[in-house]
Amino acid sequence: MRRHHHRCQIGSDSETGSDSDTDTDTAMRCISCREEYLPRDAGTCKECYVEAGETEEELKREIDDLKAKVAFLRLSSSLDHCNSSNSRSFTDVVLIASEDNAGAPPIPAHKSVLVSRSPVFKAMLENEMEESRSGTIKISDVSYDALRTFVYYLYTAEACLDEQMACDLLVMSEKYQVKHLKSYCERFLVTKLSWDNSLMTYAFAHQHNAKHVLDAALSQITENMEKLTKREEYMELVEKDPRLIVEIYEAYLSNQVNTAAGGTSTSKSG
Amino acid sequence: MRRHHHRCQIGSDSETGSDSDTDTDTAMRCISCREEYLPRDAGTCKECYVEAGETEEELKREIDDLKAKVAFLRLSSSLDHCNSSNSRSFTDVVLIASEDNAGAPPIPAHKSVLVSRSPVFKAMLENEMEESRSGTIKISDVSYDALRTFVYYLYTAEACLDEQMACDLLVMSEKYQVKHLKSYCERFLVTKLSWDNSLMTYAFAHQHNAKHVLDAALSQITENMEKLTKREEYMELVEKDPRLIVEIYEAYLSNQVNTAAGGTSTSKSG
Repeated sequence: MRRHHHRCQIGSDSETGSDSDTDTDTAMRCISCREEYLPRDAGTCKECYVEAGETEEELKREIDDLKAKVAFLRLSSSLDHCNSSNSRSFTDVVLIASEDNAGAPPIPAHKSVLVSRSPVFKAMLENEMEESRSGTIKISDVSYDALRTFVYYLYTAEACLDEQMACDLLVMSEKYQVKHLKSYCERFLVTKLSWDNSLMTYAFAHQHNAKHVLDAALSQITENMEKLTKREEYMELVEKDPRLIVEIYEAYLSNQVNTAAGGTSTSKSG
Repeated sequence: MRRHHHRCQIGSDSETGSDSDTDTDTAMRCISCREEYLPRDAGTCKECYVEAGETEEELKREIDDLKAKVAFLRLSSSLDHCNSSNSRSFTDVVLIASEDNAGAPPIPAHKSVLVSRSPVFKAMLENEMEESRSGTIKISDVSYDALRTFVYYLYTAEACLDEQMACDLLVMSEKYQVKHLKSYCERFLVTKLSWDNSLMTYAFAHQHNAKHVLDAALSQITENMEKLTKREEYMELVEKDPRLIVEIYEAYLSNQVNTAAGGTSTSKSG
């Protein structure tokens, strides 16, 4: 926007200004993006810019340090492809996915790792229960692939997720109380949320106590209430678990009341 | 510096300027530090400031995620104080500091962790050497305290360092090829470097192949050459290991030549 002002110094470039009558405003050049800008779009002074750069460098160094720490702490497991059958890995327990046919290979593991990662495994293995004596842990309702991915996560904090795997791992992490994994799966499922899968996801989250997913799914649903009763899942849920539907309506009502009262809407899960 | 310019718009605050004859330059207010500044001290535009803030937030979130990962991956060891003697920890090997009197308690550990962290332990334990069969690893030339701190680090990537401990752990990390620990100790020792300890540190770094410490010590020495020959350590080293002294002089000479030639000085370790 042009104003009738006389030209002033431009940035640090010109030390010799001249008092000429022009229509242009003072323009400066941004150190960061190199574009010209006017005083009204000014951001920071040079000192603050330099400081921000140093802060960013410090944070990046901290990230590198932490990544090196993670690389150090992850453990070799029987599932690492580089483990030849010659190298001993000192495993002292096996896990078996009993959903698969009798043919699913047992997964060798270390009791010390299992008890470190899961209070459920800890109780199971430290208290001389059957699994500890036999050296075999049978895991029900899980595929071999899901179990293997779960065990690998316990050793490395890494997992390749798709929606099915995230659901399978969330169930296992809830069952064996592995918070870090559950949190990881929840965050993944929230990114995959859409109106189409929101009812199903909501029911799933409810069943497995996944609050982060549940809240997100509820938000998605209450933003699309006009389409709700036409969904097949809706009618199924009204039959099978009407309390869940009641909670949806409660959240919706709560939003309406809050909005009318001028407050912010908060979806509360029951 | 005052110039004879007419006042222009000040930041985004004033939209109505007036063409009055004044001696003041345009002043803007930094979004970050809230101080006034002149165009010649301008930093960034507002857009870049906002972007930098978002980048900083992203980096901080990444740091939080990595910290949670580290917390997940660290392992309980026999050295954790919360381990009661009732809880089994499935250890399958013990380490003994044989420098101490026969009285130093053995340190229970897990072969799986040792082989994960050290290629030397890996070779020792996977190849049916004596230690693997007996379940006992004797570590020479180390105190119980140092050994315990070393083992704890293998489980957690954590250690409280003072200069003595950093030296002890560096020796062990070199011997057992634990790169992450060696790097940690080296960085610590560099922060403790001074003229007074530089010769001793230099000799130590040489003996244990600690390049990062060695380079830093050498820099410290060559910046203080005029005081060198008066040091007691100097005369001892000339006696015991004159090659180290030769390398100091070589580095010093190299600096002098480079400086004379107008290049940057680089201390090369031999």
